Amino acid sequence: MAQFVNAKEDLVKEAIDGLLACSGGTLSRLDGYPHIKVVYRSDWDMSRVALISGGGSGHEPAHAGFVGPGMLTAAVCGEVFASPSVEAVLAGILAVAGEAGCLLIVKNYTGDRLNFGLAAERARALGRKVEMVVVDDDVALPDLPQPRGVAGTLFVHKIAGAMAEAGKPLEEIAEAARRIIANVASIGKSLDTCTIPGSPKESRIPSGKAELGLGIHGEPGVEQVDFSGAAEAMDILLGKLRPHVQNGACVALMNNLGSTTPLEMSVLCHSLSDANFATHIIGPAPMMTSLDMHGFSVSILPVSNEELEALMVPVPMAAWPGMQEIKAPNVQPLPDGLSPIEPIPSANTQNEATINHVADLLIAAEGALNELDAKSGDGDTGSTLATAARALKTNLSKMPLADLTQLFPALGNELSQTMGGSSGVILAIYFNAAGDACANGAPVHQALLAGMKRVSDVGGASVGDRTMIDALAPALAALGEGLSAAAKAAREGADSTAAIHKAKAGRAAYVPSDNLKGHNDPGAEAVALVFEGLARSIEG
Amino acid sequence: MAQFVNAKEDLVKEAIDGLLACSGGTLSRLDGYPHIKVVYRSDWDMSRVALISGGGSGHEPAHAGFVGPGMLTAAVCGEVFASPSVEAVLAGILAVAGEAGCLLIVKNYTGDRLNFGLAAERARALGRKVEMVVVDDDVALPDLPQPRGVAGTLFVHKIAGAMAEAGKPLEEIAEAARRIIANVASIGKSLDTCTIPGSPKESRIPSGKAELGLGIHGEPGVEQVDFSGAAEAMDILLGKLRPHVQNGACVALMNNLGSTTPLEMSVLCHSLSDANFATHIIGPAPMMTSLDMHGFSVSILPVSNEELEALMVPVPMAAWPGMQEIKAPNVQPLPDGLSPIEPIPSANTQNEATINHVADLLIAAEGALNELDAKSGDGDTGSTLATAARALKTNLSKMPLADLTQLFPALGNELSQTMGGSSGVILAIYFNAAGDACANGAPVHQALLAGMKRVSDVGGASVGDRTMIDALAPALAALGEGLSAAAKAAREGADSTAAIHKAKAGRAAYVPSDNLKGHNDPGAEAVALVFEGLARSIEG
Repeated sequence: MAQFVNAKEDLVKEAIDGLLACSGGTLSRLDGYPHIKVVYRSDWDMSRVALISGGGSGHEPAHAGFVGPGMLTAAVCGEVFASPSVEAVLAGILAVAGEAGCLLIVKNYTGDRLNFGLAAERARALGRKVEMVVVDDDVALPDLPQPRGVAGTLFVHKIAGAMAEAGKPLEEIAEAARRIIANVASIGKSLDTCTIPGSPKESRIPSGKAELGLGIHGEPGVEQVDFSGAAEAMDILLGKLRPHVQNGACVALMNNLGSTTPLEMSVLCHSLSDANFATHIIGPAPMMTSLDMHGFSVSILPVSNEELEALMVPVPMAAWPGMQEIKAPNVQPLPDGLSPIEPIPSANTQNEATINHVADLLIAAEGALNELDAKSGDGDTGSTLATAARALKTNLSKMPLADLTQLFPALGNELSQTMGGSSGVILAIYFNAAGDACANGAPVHQALLAGMKRVSDVGGASVGDRTMIDALAPALAALGEGLSAAAKAAREGADSTAAIHKAKAGRAAYVPSDNLKGHNDPGAEAVALVFEGLARSIEG
Repeated sequence: MAQFVNAKEDLVKEAIDGLLACSGGTLSRLDGYPHIKVVYRSDWDMSRVALISGGGSGHEPAHAGFVGPGMLTAAVCGEVFASPSVEAVLAGILAVAGEAGCLLIVKNYTGDRLNFGLAAERARALGRKVEMVVVDDDVALPDLPQPRGVAGTLFVHKIAGAMAEAGKPLEEIAEAARRIIANVASIGKSLDTCTIPGSPKESRIPSGKAELGLGIHGEPGVEQVDFSGAAEAMDILLGKLRPHVQNGACVALMNNLGSTTPLEMSVLCHSLSDANFATHIIGPAPMMTSLDMHGFSVSILPVSNEELEALMVPVPMAAWPGMQEIKAPNVQPLPDGLSPIEPIPSANTQNEATINHVADLLIAAEGALNELDAKSGDGDTGSTLATAARALKTNLSKMPLADLTQLFPALGNELSQTMGGSSGVILAIYFNAAGDACANGAPVHQALLAGMKRVSDVGGASVGDRTMIDALAPALAALGEGLSAAAKAAREGADSTAAIHKAKAGRAAYVPSDNLKGHNDPGAEAVALVFEGLARSIEG
C-alpha cells in the first residue's frame, strides 16, 4: 500500500527533519543520524529536571511532538516500532540532564525498558542523576503479566512536565509519575489494522468485527468482538475501564489511533459525555497513534486537585489538544425571523396585470423551452418555469401588489418554494435583492439591476457565460430607452448564447461543447421571450 | 467499510454534540436539529463583526472546530458533503450578526453559493448587514470555469478572524478577504479515495498512481499521475503552485486530507522546507479534510506584513496548529561520554581467579542449560552464556581487576557487547548498577544487591516470576552467612521455578504453562550452578 514516504530507511530521519523545519526553531536534534535520533528543546538551559521519553516511531505526535515547555525536554526516537539503542538514549540523557537530573518516562515494552534502563546506568556511571518510570496502563486483560504502556503515558508527560517546568525536584516528580502510573488505565479498539511502511497491510479483522484491547504496534487485540456501532463500541470500553474510576475528578484522554475521522471521534465523545464517566477530557486528538490504524483508545485517570491543575496548564505545542471540562451541550433557542413574514395582501391593477402576463408568457413557452433544454440539459426548464408561473397566478391575490418593497421579496419567497432547485434559489436571490434595493430608495429599474448584480455575484456568472444573464444584462441596460429596446437587446443577447460553446457557470458548464453549439441557452431564451411579450403588449 | 458511527442520519448531529460536550462550554448550538445545525461561540456578545462559514460536513475540523475567539463566530453545518439549507444559514446569521454586521465565508460550490447567497438576501431584508465572499483557491486546472474552494479558506478564516476580533469594520474585513481570495492557491494529491459513511468505498486509484488536483468531496482528481515517493509528489504540487508565489513572505498551509500519518506529513514538510518555497508554514495538520482520504493539500498565500501578523495571532482552538517560520533543522553535536571509557587494566589474582572460575562453570554447563532451555524456549541459554564466558576469559587481561568500582561497569560493558540480546543488556544493567553502588561506597555484597534491585526494576521481574531472580535473590540474601549458604539458597530457589507454571516476565511469559511444568528456569539454574561451583571450590 503506497504511502507518502521515500526510502524506508530515511523515513524517520526525514520526518524528524520535517518536524524540526516546521517548529520555528523551537526544536533541535543531535547530530547522530542514522542511529541516534534525539529531538530536544532548543531553549533548554538545564536549570530544571529534564523529562525524556521516546521509543519506537510510528506513534506520532508522540513523542517528539510533545517536546517543549511544560512537557518533554527530549524525545529519543527509534525506527518504526523499534526501540532506540542504548547509545541513543544515553545521548539524549547527556544532552539535556543537568544538575537537577532527569526522569526517563518509558512505555512498558521489553526493548524500551532494557535500552532505557542500561542507558540510565551508564549515565549514572558518568555522574548524572537519573530516575526511570515505566508506564503500564493497558488493562486489556486484568491479569496480563506485563501490561503494555500506551496512551496513558501522556498523563505522565503532562503532569510531570508541568512540575518540571515549575522547578520541582526530581524525586518529587518521579514520585508523582509513579502515582499516576498506579492509577491510570487505558484500552483501545480498532476496526482495521495499521500499514507498516514497506510491508503489505494485514487484513486481520473481518467485516462486522472490531478488535478490543490492542496495543500500539499493530499486534492483535486481546479479542475480536462484534461491532454494531459507535455507542456500543464505547460502552464496551467503558465497561473495561469502570473498575479504575473513582469518585471525584476523573480525566478521560480520547486518543485517535490514526485514521479515525474527526466526525467519528466526536460521535464517540458524544457517547462518552453521555455516560457521565469522566469530569474532564483531553482531546479527541491523535496523541499516541499506531500509524494509520482505524481505531481509538480511552485512558482514564482519577486525579487530585494538583494533578488536575497540572493537566490544565497550557503548553505551546500544537499536538497537545488541551483539557476541557465535559459539559452537556449548550443549546439555545432559534432566533426570530426564520419564517418569511407573511405579506399583507394589497391590490394594484397594473402590477397584477404585468405579473399575470409574464406568467402566461412562461406557461405558453413551456414546450419550446423544454425542447431547447433537452439539447444541453434534462429538458425541464420550460416545465419548471411554467409550474412556478401557474402557482404564482393562483397565489396572486395574497401578494402585496401595491408595494414593490414588499412585493419583490414576496415574489422571491414564493418562487423559492414553488420552483425548487437552483433556479428557485437564484430567482429568490434576484427578487430579494431587488426588494432590498427598493427598501433603500432605489427606483424599479435600479432595483432590477441590483437584483441582477447579486445573482451574478452569488451565482458566479457574467455576460458570456451562457446563462440567463446574457439576455437579462443587455435588456436591463436598454430598459431606460423603453421596453421595445429592452426586448430587442434581450433577443440579441439570447441569440448570442448559441455561439457560446463553453459555459463557465451553471449546469451547462459540465456539458460537452458539441452539445451547446447552435442553440440558445434556455434561461436566456426565457428572458428574451418575456421581454418580447411585454413589449408586444405595450405596442399592441 | 465499518466506521465508528451509529445511525447515518444522526452522524452529524451526534458529532456536533460530542464537539460541544468537549469544548468546555465555549461552543453553543441552536436548537434546530435535524435541519438547522449551527455551532457558535458561547461568549459572543455581538459587539464586533461576525464571521460565518460552513458547508457540508466531512471536512472536520472545518468548520465548527475553528469557531472561537480570533477565527469564526459561527459554523453552519450541512450533512456529509451536502450544503446546509437557506434556513440553516439564515438562522446562523440571525443568531450572531449584530450592528457590526457579518461576513459569510463560502467555498465555491454551487449549493453553498446559492444557499448562503439567498440566506444573505433574506437577512438583509430583515435589516442585517451582510457581506459574502466566495473562496475559489483550487488551481488544479488553470482554466477551470469555477475553481473549487478548498483549504485556502483557512487563510480567510484566520486573517478575517484576527481583524474581526480587533474590531475592524465589515467593509475592511470583506475587502481583506477578497484580497486573500485573489492571491491564494491550493492543490491536493491523494493515494486513495475517502469512505463516505453508509456507502461502499470506491477503489479508483490503481497501485502506483496518485490523483492530482482532487477536491474535498471524494470527486476524482484532474489527472492520475505516477507515484514514486513523497519527494516527487511534493515536487509536482509545488510546480503547480509556483506561478502563484511572489517574492517576499509566503505562507504554506500543509493540510492533511484525512488519514495521512503524521510521519508522512512530516516527510512531505521536509521536502517543502528543502524546496525554499515558502517562508512560513501552518501545520502540518488536518484542517480541511475529506473524511478519511489518504492525501494532503498545499495552499500558498503570498502575504503582506499585516496578513502575516494576523496569521500569527494565537487562538485557543486546538484544531488551529499555529504558524511557524520555516527554518533549516537545528543540528547540535553529540555530547561527550557516549563511548564507554576504556578501563585501565590492573591485576588482582583473587578477582581474576573468581571470574575465570565462574566462566569455566558456565562453559561446562553449556549443554545442560541448552537442554533445559529447549523445553520452554529456543534452547540457546547455555550457548549464549558460554560464548560470553569464553570471550570474557580472552579479554580478562584488559580488565581493571584491582578496582571493583571500575571492574563492575567494565564487566557490564563487555557482556553487553559479547552476549547481545536482552540477556546482555540485563547483565550490563546488573554490573553497571553494582559499580554505581561501589562508587558510592557500598561493600561488595551491597553492590551485588543493588545490581539485582535495578535489574528487577528495569526488567519488571520479582521472586516467583520464573527468572534468574528466583535463584539470585535468595543467594544474595544468604550470602552474609557464607558461600555455602548462598549456594544452598540458590539451588532451592532454582528448583522452586519448576513449580512456577505461569511466568510473569521474560520470554517464558509467552510460553504455554504446560511447557513450563516440572523443569527449572534455565537462568535461575545457571545462577545456582555458579554459586554451587564457587562454594565447592572454597570447601575444596
